[in-house]
Amino acid sequence: MMRKLCAEAFGTFWLVFGGCGSAVLAAGFPELGIGFVGVSMAFGLTVLTMAYAVGGISGGHFNPAVSLGLAVANRFSWGELIPYWAAQVLGAFAAGLALLIIASGAEGFVAGGFASNGFGDLSPGGYSMQAALLIEIILTAFFLIVILGSTSAKAPAGFAPIAIGLCLTLIHLVSIPVTNTSVNPARSTGVAFFAETGAAGQLWLFWVAPLVGAAIGAVIWRYLLSPDDTLENIGGDAQE
Amino acid sequence: MMRKLCAEAFGTFWLVFGGCGSAVLAAGFPELGIGFVGVSMAFGLTVLTMAYAVGGISGGHFNPAVSLGLAVANRFSWGELIPYWAAQVLGAFAAGLALLIIASGAEGFVAGGFASNGFGDLSPGGYSMQAALLIEIILTAFFLIVILGSTSAKAPAGFAPIAIGLCLTLIHLVSIPVTNTSVNPARSTGVAFFAETGAAGQLWLFWVAPLVGAAIGAVIWRYLLSPDDTLENIGGDAQE
Amino acid sequence: MMRKLCAEAFGTFWLVFGGCGSAVLAAGFPELGIGFVGVSMAFGLTVLTMAYAVGGISGGHFNPAVSLGLAVANRFSWGELIPYWAAQVLGAFAAGLALLIIASGAEGFVAGGFASNGFGDLSPGGYSMQAALLIEIILTAFFLIVILGSTSAKAPAGFAPIAIGLCLTLIHLVSIPVTNTSVNPARSTGVAFFAETGAAGQLWLFWVAPLVGAAIGAVIWRYLLSPDDTLENIGGDAQE
Amino acid sequence: MMRKLCAEAFGTFWLVFGGCGSAVLAAGFPELGIGFVGVSMAFGLTVLTMAYAVGGISGGHFNPAVSLGLAVANRFSWGELIPYWAAQVLGAFAAGLALLIIASGAEGFVAGGFASNGFGDLSPGGYSMQAALLIEIILTAFFLIVILGSTSAKAPAGFAPIAIGLCLTLIHLVSIPVTNTSVNPARSTGVAFFAETGAAGQLWLFWVAPLVGAAIGAVIWRYLLSPDDTLENIGGDAQE
Repeated sequence: MMRKLCAEAFGTFWLVFGGCGSAVLAAGFPELGIGFVGVSMAFGLTVLTMAYAVGGISGGHFNPAVSLGLAVANRFSWGELIPYWAAQVLGAFAAGLALLIIASGAEGFVAGGFASNGFGDLSPGGYSMQAALLIEIILTAFFLIVILGSTSAKAPAGFAPIAIGLCLTLIHLVSIPVTNTSVNPARSTGVAFFAETGAAGQLWLFWVAPLVGAAIGAVIWRYLLSPDDTLENIGGDAQE
Repeated sequence: MMRKLCAEAFGTFWLVFGGCGSAVLAAGFPELGIGFVGVSMAFGLTVLTMAYAVGGISGGHFNPAVSLGLAVANRFSWGELIPYWAAQVLGAFAAGLALLIIASGAEGFVAGGFASNGFGDLSPGGYSMQAALLIEIILTAFFLIVILGSTSAKAPAGFAPIAIGLCLTLIHLVSIPVTNTSVNPARSTGVAFFAETGAAGQLWLFWVAPLVGAAIGAVIWRYLLSPDDTLENIGGDAQE
Repeated sequence: MMRKLCAEAFGTFWLVFGGCGSAVLAAGFPELGIGFVGVSMAFGLTVLTMAYAVGGISGGHFNPAVSLGLAVANRFSWGELIPYWAAQVLGAFAAGLALLIIASGAEGFVAGGFASNGFGDLSPGGYSMQAALLIEIILTAFFLIVILGSTSAKAPAGFAPIAIGLCLTLIHLVSIPVTNTSVNPARSTGVAFFAETGAAGQLWLFWVAPLVGAAIGAVIWRYLLSPDDTLENIGGDAQE
Repeated sequence: MMRKLCAEAFGTFWLVFGGCGSAVLAAGFPELGIGFVGVSMAFGLTVLTMAYAVGGISGGHFNPAVSLGLAVANRFSWGELIPYWAAQVLGAFAAGLALLIIASGAEGFVAGGFASNGFGDLSPGGYSMQAALLIEIILTAFFLIVILGSTSAKAPAGFAPIAIGLCLTLIHLVSIPVTNTSVNPARSTGVAFFAETGAAGQLWLFWVAPLVGAAIGAVIWRYLLSPDDTLENIGGDAQE
C-alpha cells in the first residue's frame, strides 16, 4: 500500500509540475513560447509517461476524480479512495511549491494566476460559471469512458497509457480558454493557494464538477457501453 | 446492437465536441491559441481515444463514410448501415448543441461559421467547389485505405487506432484551409445548422464527397491492395 | 508484384499529397497556419499511416533512397529496385498534379516554389549547396539506421511505423529551413516540375544526396551496429 | 562491446544533431519557425527513434546521467560506465561540429548561444543558478523514474521508447526557458565549446545537476517504487 501511495504522489507531482510548469514557465515566452498547444501536450505526456512508469504499481490515477470513477465502475476499492486522494493532493501541492520556487528565480516574476483554474473573471476567455461546470463535467465523463474502455479486457493490451495521456492532451486543447482545464481536483488544489488571484475561492467547482463528471462517465460505461458487465460486477480485472 | 449504437453515438459526440470544440473555443485565442495544428491534433485524438475505448464494441466508425466504406469492403454488414448513420448523426448533433451552450457562456460570443464546413465564400481560404469536392474525395479515399489496411490481418494488432486517429490529424493538417475539413458527413451535419452562415446550404457536398471517396477507397483497397481478397470476399474478420 | 507496386505508388502519392499539400495549402495561412511544425507532422504521419496500412504488402518504402538502402543492407531484392523507383516517382508525380489542381481552386493562387526542394537562392533560409548536400546525406543516413534498426529482429514488433514516421517528422523539424527537406528523391521529383522557380534544375542534388546518404546509413548499420550480421548476410527476414 | 559503444555514439550524435539542430536552424525562422514546441518534439523524437533502432544493442542511453542512474539502480554494469560516457560525449561533440558546418552555410550566420545550456545571463528567461540547479535535478530524477519504470518487468513490453522519448519532449516543454534544457551532460558538452557566449564556463552545472538528479531518481525508484526490488538487487533483467 505504501508503494501505491508513493506512486500516486510522485505521479501527481509530475502531472502538476510538468503541466502547470509548462504553462507558467513556457507558454507565454516571447515569440518562441509553446502556447496552449504546448501546454496541452505537456499535461498529456505527464500522464502517458507516469502511467507507463508506475501504472503497474498503483493503477496510475494521479487524479481524485479518476479514483472515484474507477470505484463507481467497480474497478477500484472504495477503501483505498481516501488514502489515494490524500497522496494525490499532497503530491500536487509539493509540485506547486517546487514550481513556485523555480519560477521565482527569474527577475520580475509575479505569480499571477499561476496556472490555476477559474471561471468568470478568472476564466482565460471570460466564460461563465455555468459554462465552466458543464464543460468540466462533460470532459471528465468522457475521460473516464476512455480510461475504462481502454483498460477493459476488449481493448488491446499495453496501449491504455497512450489513449489516456493523449485524451488529457485533447481535453486541454478544447478547454484551456474556458477554465484553464482542470478535470482533476488535485491539479487544481496544487496551485490554487499560490495564485495571487481569487482562485482558491473558486476551487469548490473544480472538485464538484470533475467528481460528478467522473461518476457520470463511470455509470455510462458500466450500463451503456461495457461489453461484459457481469464480469465487472463480480470484481473482474485488476484495472488499468 | 444497442451497445453498438451507444458506442457510435458517444464516439461521434466526442469527435464533434472535441474537434469542433477546439476550433470554436481555442483555435483563435489571442497569442496563445492552438491554430490549425491544435485543431488537427484534437480531431485525430478524438478518434484515437474512442477507438481504444469502444472500438471493441462497435468497430469505432464515428463517421457515416467510414461505415459505408467498410460495407463496400465487405467488412461491415449492410443491414447495420442505416442504424449506425442515425446514431452517428444524433451524437454529432448533440455535441454541436452542447458546444453552442458552452460557447455562449462567453460574453460577446457570436456563432459565425461555428466550425462548419464550406466551399467558395465559406471556405476558410476561398477555395472553389471543384477543389472542395476533389480534396474531400481524395482524403476520404485514403482515410479508408488506412483504416482497411491497418485493421487487416497483415497489420500488427493493436496499432490501428493510432494509425487511424493520426491519419485524421494529417487530413486536417492538409485541408482545413480548403473546406475546414469534413471527410465525415456526421461531423458536418452536427454543426451546420448552428452556423450563422449559409453552411447548411452546402451540406450536400459534405455527404456526397466523403461517401464517394470512401467507396472509392474501399474499392482500391479490395481490388488493388488487399493482400488476400479471397478471404475478404468470403466474409473474413470481424473488422477494426 | 503488381500489388506491391500499387502499394508503393499509393503510399508515395500520400506522402507527397499530404506532406507537400500541408506546406502549400496550410503552412502560411494567416495567423492560424500550421508553420514548419505542422508540415513536419504531416510528412511523418503520411509514412506512419501508410506503413501500417500497406507495409505488410510492399514493405512500405515510398522513397527510392529507402529502397536502395534496404538493398544495400541485404533486406530488399536488387531486381525489384527499378520497378519500385518507377512506382514511387509515378505516385509522387500524380500527387503533385492533384495538388496543383486543388491549389489552383483558390483565387490568386501562384505556384511559386510549390513545396519544392532547393539550395542557394532556392533554400528557404539561403543555405549553400555544400550545406544542403551535407545535411541531406546525414539525415538520410540516420533515416536508414532507424528504418533498419526498428525493423530488425531485436526491435519490438509492430512499432516500426511509429519510429520511422516520427523519424521523418524529426528530420523535417531540423532541415526545412535548409533544403525544404527532401531525403526522398521521389518527393522532390513529384513537385519540382510544377514549381515556377528553377527547382527542376537543382533536382540532381535531391537524388544524389539521399541515395548516397541511404547507402552510407545501410553500411553503418550492417557493419557497425547490426547485432547479428551473419543472419542478414544469409538473407534473413522479409524486411520491414 | 564495440557495437554497444558505436550505438551510443551514433545515438547521442542523433540526439544533439536533431535536437540542437532544430533549435539552431529552425526554431526562430521568421513566421513559420517551430518555436520551443518544435524543439521539444525534436529532442524527444531523437530518443524515441534511436531507442527503437539501437536500444536492443546498447540499451539506448545516449546520456551520461541515464547511464549513471541505471548503474545506481543496478540495471547497468559500473564497469561499462566510463566507456559509455566517452562514446556519448564523442558522438555529441561530432554532432556539434557537423551542425556548425551546416549552419555556417547560411550567409550572415553567427553561432551565438548555439543551443547551449546556461543560467543567469545565459538562461533564455534569465533564471538564477539556484533555479537552474533545482529544475535540472528534478527533471532528471523523474526522467530516470520514467526510464526505470517503463522498462521494468511490470510495464508492457515494447512501449518504453515511446514513454522515454516523449518524457524528454515533456521535459523540454517545461524547461527550455530556464536552462535551455539539459538533463544530459553529453548534449551540453557537445555544443558548449562552439557557443560564442560563456556557455563553457557554466558547463559544470550541466554535469553536476543531471548526475545528481539521475542518482536521486534511481534511488527513489529502487527503494520507494520498484514493485519487486529483490529481483533487481540480484541483477535481474538486461535493462531497457
